[in-house]
Amino acid sequence: MPGEFDLIDWIRSQHKPSDFVPVPQGDDLAVLKWDAADLLLVGVDQVLDGVHFDSAVHSPRLIGRKVMNRNLSDCAAMACLPAAAVATVALPRGVGIDYAKELYRGLRDAADPFDCRLVGGDTASWDGRLACTVTVLGRSAGVAPIQRGGAKPGDGIYVTGPLGGSILGRHLTFAPRVHLARELARTRLVTAMLDLSDGLSRDLRHICSQSGVGATIDADAVPIHADALELSRQDGRDPLLHALHDGEDHELLFTASADPDVRGVVRVGTITADAGIWLLRGGVREPLSAEGWQHTL
Amino acid sequence: MPGEFDLIDWIRSQHKPSDFVPVPQGDDLAVLKWDAADLLLVGVDQVLDGVHFDSAVHSPRLIGRKVMNRNLSDCAAMACLPAAAVATVALPRGVGIDYAKELYRGLRDAADPFDCRLVGGDTASWDGRLACTVTVLGRSAGVAPIQRGGAKPGDGIYVTGPLGGSILGRHLTFAPRVHLARELARTRLVTAMLDLSDGLSRDLRHICSQSGVGATIDADAVPIHADALELSRQDGRDPLLHALHDGEDHELLFTASADPDVRGVVRVGTITADAGIWLLRGGVREPLSAEGWQHTL
Repeated sequence: MPGEFDLIDWIRSQHKPSDFVPVPQGDDLAVLKWDAADLLLVGVDQVLDGVHFDSAVHSPRLIGRKVMNRNLSDCAAMACLPAAAVATVALPRGVGIDYAKELYRGLRDAADPFDCRLVGGDTASWDGRLACTVTVLGRSAGVAPIQRGGAKPGDGIYVTGPLGGSILGRHLTFAPRVHLARELARTRLVTAMLDLSDGLSRDLRHICSQSGVGATIDADAVPIHADALELSRQDGRDPLLHALHDGEDHELLFTASADPDVRGVVRVGTITADAGIWLLRGGVREPLSAEGWQHTL
Repeated sequence: MPGEFDLIDWIRSQHKPSDFVPVPQGDDLAVLKWDAADLLLVGVDQVLDGVHFDSAVHSPRLIGRKVMNRNLSDCAAMACLPAAAVATVALPRGVGIDYAKELYRGLRDAADPFDCRLVGGDTASWDGRLACTVTVLGRSAGVAPIQRGGAKPGDGIYVTGPLGGSILGRHLTFAPRVHLARELARTRLVTAMLDLSDGLSRDLRHICSQSGVGATIDADAVPIHADALELSRQDGRDPLLHALHDGEDHELLFTASADPDVRGVVRVGTITADAGIWLLRGGVREPLSAEGWQHTL
């Protein structure tokens, strides 16, 4: 029966040596050279069977792609370049080495286009469900990281694409907005940014609370994804509510002191001095409650 | 019911600001300043319920401590200093926020003595078993990382403490040999090193295969832990076999061109030019098979 060291040998065989990673794979830790001019950004994200995917339906390759892309999307949120990643996989006992290889290929499918190196990891099998984590290391590469706390009253609120209904499949196949984020940051107009993982109504709160401001969203301006319309046909819910509250869009939500005039970017509202978060719809202002996703413990 | 953001707020409140971490907790990624003179070392390790601990028996605080210490022990294996860490926790639904806080305290119990900052993480609940991962960032801090591939014929083989029987409890409470590893590396005599996680008989193979050498272990020289003796009384197995094959000792196993003369270090064998791995016992040479732990996939 193949064991974890067979998988480790196989993964190692997939790698090319580089100046950036002077110590070969297969030691206790990977060794990287880091340029002092580059701030080092680090974050971690996990996907769990039954929460972020359904292993009975979704392929290991798509699952691997999703967890890597979630981390790359965090890099986009900070306007940094993904440089390296490490991953862990907790495999249900007996799924086999080919399943693990497909997961790994999914990680690489997402990381390779950004030249983000998978430099280490840990694989174990257990009497439990499939869980996969990725830690990403990003580098600032000449662009100051965009934080969440810089929004000012009067700033416009923008998104980088249509929202809602990602549950129909886009949550597995989205493209992280790394290059778009860098382009936006270089305009020097962006004051706060994050990626939409928990839904616009919830994620907007992070920017508002950390910036000490409020916001008004213009209902007519919110771009509604075709998936939100399709989901609306299935569940009878207003497509706008899907666009406002559904999670895992992984578009960027940002504020800017002036329109950055970048293709695909849509203004959806305005930052206000008072702390409330409001939805303006048909001339009526109503509180925009956070109905997006939150794990309860 | 408390949610993940309550936990995130609580974790954030535990942190002190620092020059090393210029962007406050709570953004998409943590931002670190990295000195170009420091190589950046990165690794990740996970602990899973039923494999690395038993949540029915072990406290969340001990579980958190174990997963952090496993990563710190990887730093020891490379003779680097742990600088920062990120963690994920997959919590069985309904365990509650206090359980998560105890896990977090366990992570800090292990990390704080090394001034290793917990700079980010991800918490989710699921219909699954408890899983916890830690990614550690180490810095070389003036000491070249010790790899696994540098052992030479004639080098002595050494361990930093008695082995075996860690399953009786030491696997949860071991002290990572970070400072000892630095002291050893500074002698410039150490040619290869790792930490004993899968058992001496298995981990020694990593050094031999990556160095292209063989080894002879002297049975009489292997230090046997009191726990191995106790376990031997329980299961009737030769205590030497526990010392040679049991996992999770987390002592260092290293090779050196001369005795480094450091307290607590014991020579257990010699590196050979021929590729075999042998046990010398009572004047008889027999193959030393790898019976240590390996996950089957």
